[in-house]
Amino acid sequence: MDKKIKLKVDKQVMEVESGTNLLDILRENKIFIDNPCGGKGTCGKCKVKLIKGLKEPTSLDIKHLSKEEIEEGIRLSCNINISETTELIIPVDNEKMNIAVAMEKYEFDVDSMIKKKYLVMKEPSIEDQRDDYKRISDACGIRDLLIGIKDLATVSEKLRKYNFDVTAAIYKNQLIHIEEGDEREKIYGLAIDVGTTTIAAYLLDMNNGKVMDVEPQINMQRIYGADVISRIDFTVENKEGLNTLRQCIIGQVNSIIETLSARNSICKDNIYDVVIAGNTTMIHLLLGLPCKQIAMAPYISVVTKALEIKAEELGIITQGIVSIIPGISAYIGGDIVSGILSSGMLNSEGHSLLLDLGTNGEMVLGNKSEIITCSTAAGPAFEGSNIKHGVGGIKGAICKIDLSQDKVYETVGGENPIGVCGSGVLDTVAQFLKYGIIDGTGKIIDKNELGEKYKDRLMDTGKMKEFILAEDKMNNKIITFTQKDVREVQLAKAAISAGIKILLKEKNIQLEDIETMYIGGGFGSYMDAESAITIGMIPKELKDRIRSIGNCSGAGAKMYLMSKKLRDKALEISRKANYIELSRRSDFQEYFIDSMLLE
Amino acid sequence: MDKKIKLKVDKQVMEVESGTNLLDILRENKIFIDNPCGGKGTCGKCKVKLIKGLKEPTSLDIKHLSKEEIEEGIRLSCNINISETTELIIPVDNEKMNIAVAMEKYEFDVDSMIKKKYLVMKEPSIEDQRDDYKRISDACGIRDLLIGIKDLATVSEKLRKYNFDVTAAIYKNQLIHIEEGDEREKIYGLAIDVGTTTIAAYLLDMNNGKVMDVEPQINMQRIYGADVISRIDFTVENKEGLNTLRQCIIGQVNSIIETLSARNSICKDNIYDVVIAGNTTMIHLLLGLPCKQIAMAPYISVVTKALEIKAEELGIITQGIVSIIPGISAYIGGDIVSGILSSGMLNSEGHSLLLDLGTNGEMVLGNKSEIITCSTAAGPAFEGSNIKHGVGGIKGAICKIDLSQDKVYETVGGENPIGVCGSGVLDTVAQFLKYGIIDGTGKIIDKNELGEKYKDRLMDTGKMKEFILAEDKMNNKIITFTQKDVREVQLAKAAISAGIKILLKEKNIQLEDIETMYIGGGFGSYMDAESAITIGMIPKELKDRIRSIGNCSGAGAKMYLMSKKLRDKALEISRKANYIELSRRSDFQEYFIDSMLLE
Repeated sequence: MDKKIKLKVDKQVMEVESGTNLLDILRENKIFIDNPCGGKGTCGKCKVKLIKGLKEPTSLDIKHLSKEEIEEGIRLSCNINISETTELIIPVDNEKMNIAVAMEKYEFDVDSMIKKKYLVMKEPSIEDQRDDYKRISDACGIRDLLIGIKDLATVSEKLRKYNFDVTAAIYKNQLIHIEEGDEREKIYGLAIDVGTTTIAAYLLDMNNGKVMDVEPQINMQRIYGADVISRIDFTVENKEGLNTLRQCIIGQVNSIIETLSARNSICKDNIYDVVIAGNTTMIHLLLGLPCKQIAMAPYISVVTKALEIKAEELGIITQGIVSIIPGISAYIGGDIVSGILSSGMLNSEGHSLLLDLGTNGEMVLGNKSEIITCSTAAGPAFEGSNIKHGVGGIKGAICKIDLSQDKVYETVGGENPIGVCGSGVLDTVAQFLKYGIIDGTGKIIDKNELGEKYKDRLMDTGKMKEFILAEDKMNNKIITFTQKDVREVQLAKAAISAGIKILLKEKNIQLEDIETMYIGGGFGSYMDAESAITIGMIPKELKDRIRSIGNCSGAGAKMYLMSKKLRDKALEISRKANYIELSRRSDFQEYFIDSMLLE
Repeated sequence: MDKKIKLKVDKQVMEVESGTNLLDILRENKIFIDNPCGGKGTCGKCKVKLIKGLKEPTSLDIKHLSKEEIEEGIRLSCNINISETTELIIPVDNEKMNIAVAMEKYEFDVDSMIKKKYLVMKEPSIEDQRDDYKRISDACGIRDLLIGIKDLATVSEKLRKYNFDVTAAIYKNQLIHIEEGDEREKIYGLAIDVGTTTIAAYLLDMNNGKVMDVEPQINMQRIYGADVISRIDFTVENKEGLNTLRQCIIGQVNSIIETLSARNSICKDNIYDVVIAGNTTMIHLLLGLPCKQIAMAPYISVVTKALEIKAEELGIITQGIVSIIPGISAYIGGDIVSGILSSGMLNSEGHSLLLDLGTNGEMVLGNKSEIITCSTAAGPAFEGSNIKHGVGGIKGAICKIDLSQDKVYETVGGENPIGVCGSGVLDTVAQFLKYGIIDGTGKIIDKNELGEKYKDRLMDTGKMKEFILAEDKMNNKIITFTQKDVREVQLAKAAISAGIKILLKEKNIQLEDIETMYIGGGFGSYMDAESAITIGMIPKELKDRIRSIGNCSGAGAKMYLMSKKLRDKALEISRKANYIELSRRSDFQEYFIDSMLLE
């Protein structure tokens, strides 16, 4: 038997096999640690502070960590194999992100897929020998009522237990639940937006479509990689990887169901429809479908169509069905279809643009009769992944920059600054441009050309210029924005800008013909539109037509849950939309290079 | 821990807990032993011969066994709890029954539910990014092609493994199997008649409907009770009883699939449809549905409609579906619908009767436009259950009696006589009547009134008169037919005769209007129609219109498998047929009593 080693993480004590990798241990124990590269040793984010069992820094530690960090005992967890009693703390603040969960108003007729019927049946007699199936299907008034074989046994027993006085929940022509007496009022549904980074779950009363509660959570799959590509890599590189990720999201959905049921004093058996909006990879992971082909050219998913599956089949703990909102391609998922639906952009003859900025950047151009879409991997820079001091939108994240002020930054929750999140990243580059800290090519200018006010903030490590945004007094470190960070933003903004140009070109539409520019998605909800215009990510011509629509994917999921008509509309969107694969277009490359300049 | 005791049964050695019931042990180990009463101690059939560990006979042994049997060490296994090292043999000849599996000719257009398509697809490219689902459904030409979530993962991987060159098996709009290259020729189906006593499985080439092979077997569930009522009792009295019986039949169907696949060198994955004809209880047991209500008034089944279920869901080891032929009521099952279908009785304007005599006796009256049915528990007497020396139609069973001959009996296989099977039972009573051994009331006449020829054959044990049919020299015992046995036959024939009268009365049809009297079913196939007429079970007026149709249920199952049109016809039969519950009719009681006389 292998030697067992004692390991203490924060306040949690455990025993581990000698030689086990620390990052693997943290993941297995569902201890949240930032590791966007998925343990490859390239991101330098999976920092732990060792209290006992400190080791000499390795070359990887030296590459990614500051001298101060190394001195105070910080190491990268992906780089440590536990071989002696170890005690550590995870220094990052892992409080919940501010997930966009605005309770948008929406109007439509409530007409969901689920109906409840109160049935008082005649008891069987020698004059009325109809079998149980026939008796209940006659009572429902549905000739080909579907009841699964396993459910038939239960139904038969319940009919007798409840003296043939029951309420039946019916989905299409399928019996999904049976209860004693008249329980027609108890009919609930969930609309869940499963993002790569965040999950937003809405509990709805399906009698009236009212949102009863909302539960925002970090997607626990993050411990296996920050973006879709690292998650897919995880499924390819680990034999049980796909199953691990599937169980992770299913477990989290189930825990959300438990939480919302308990908090609202409802029975989870009365949640009959769980609508899920997610990008194509999140849906594949949820369904346990192989997603290797999504990550490599020619980028093929297994399925994008709408699915309605028994919750039980997926391991979800409700009685009813799980409805998957259809997507369009491997990189335009049901979350975007849902966003198109809720934006209302298809109600008009005039064309509108939709930009969804989450971990990915998806763009849509459409009107009443046509929809085209494209997608770029623009998001990571705004999710903190490729930014030196980048963090998610957690408490203490710098979310706003104004270099004209004395204190140039604001943080989420007004707390001690710990890093820069997406909106801060965008602001920083816009402010750099405004105050001449970078030139039009994105180059940080030399110290001697810089105004007196900012001179002290500029450092040159020899390798790279860095601009000091703030001081993290708690952790005794400075938060900088580097030349490389500016380049990351330039790449992201160029991709988005070029994508928009391709969509317009494809349909031969001019900017002045665009009615509305909708901006949604995790980061999209929080970013400063003016900053986006300043750096040229969004065309300045659209300035007065920008409309921020928050979590449009979650809003669409609620509509999909509550209205058959809108569900049909979503099916129509997924069928009708065309996807433009940018990687095969030489004109995209040209636009992309053109757009690298910061105007 | 309980003490372990060594037990040897025939050549099989096992260890059992001290105090365990012997019959239970035999059942658990799937060792076939006749026990029609299901271990209640009433039938006296579960005999074992103890070689070691012999015990004093109990009152139950004395009641059921002859003095000779007790002396040679025979005991009832239901009555023994193993407490010391025991060795025994099971004396009954348990060879396979002669199951009616005639390869009937039938004519119809082959047009089954399963289609195979050979698909050569374009490989995905950056110009053709259709997802895997869309690619295969386009190739199939089915827009809403159904593929289960678990299958989707496999399909995606197989498409690549087989270079997008595959054959797909499709059921309705559902993809059920995918293979490499062009395999359209390999398409097989099974038609299985699951009787209470016997199972007949036919393997068909679905390209042309040709029967390739047939496998007759005893229904292994027999070890848990001979008739449907004892089986249902077993599910009620044992917590895991239903599951035990379900696993028993599923296991047997799977073993039949293995046997037929191996013997015909085909792959079981190419068996796409398994059609099952069975009485309502057999179907409930196969599906794991509670059947308690079938056994008690008002006799309600859970379901009788046609079902098409994924084989996997039932635990059946083929790739495709299992099709359950619909029934009519708790006592008129899919086996009868199947028999009605294959008899062809519905093709005519004129009315015909169908009598299916297996373990139960089911009767049908119908023509092109109407069908009525009824059912009686007439079978047991003809299956050997309630007859002193009754046995199934196994080798050595007396199957024919002619008292005018010197050797009055014939046995199955011409072997040493071991008991009397159904056709022998029927012949015996007819011959008794013909040669004046019984009078019209069924009473065996006194020895002194009997002709010289038969005098020596009549014994009077004091309790009851018995007529010696044969001597079982091997087991040194005599085979008799008792006064009580005659009474059992009278009850059975009265029930059938009265049932026929009720059907005719219900539709106001005269015997002369009956076109054909079809006789099918296990026992029905072998019985001598003249004997049946002699004792008045079948109206003598129909003598020249009797047509024996063998295993009509199995024949119908083949039709159901091979032709969509005939499948629809079966659905129509099950919908249209009316069931007459005899127990609620006082006129049935009157007919029944009238029919007790042997004409």
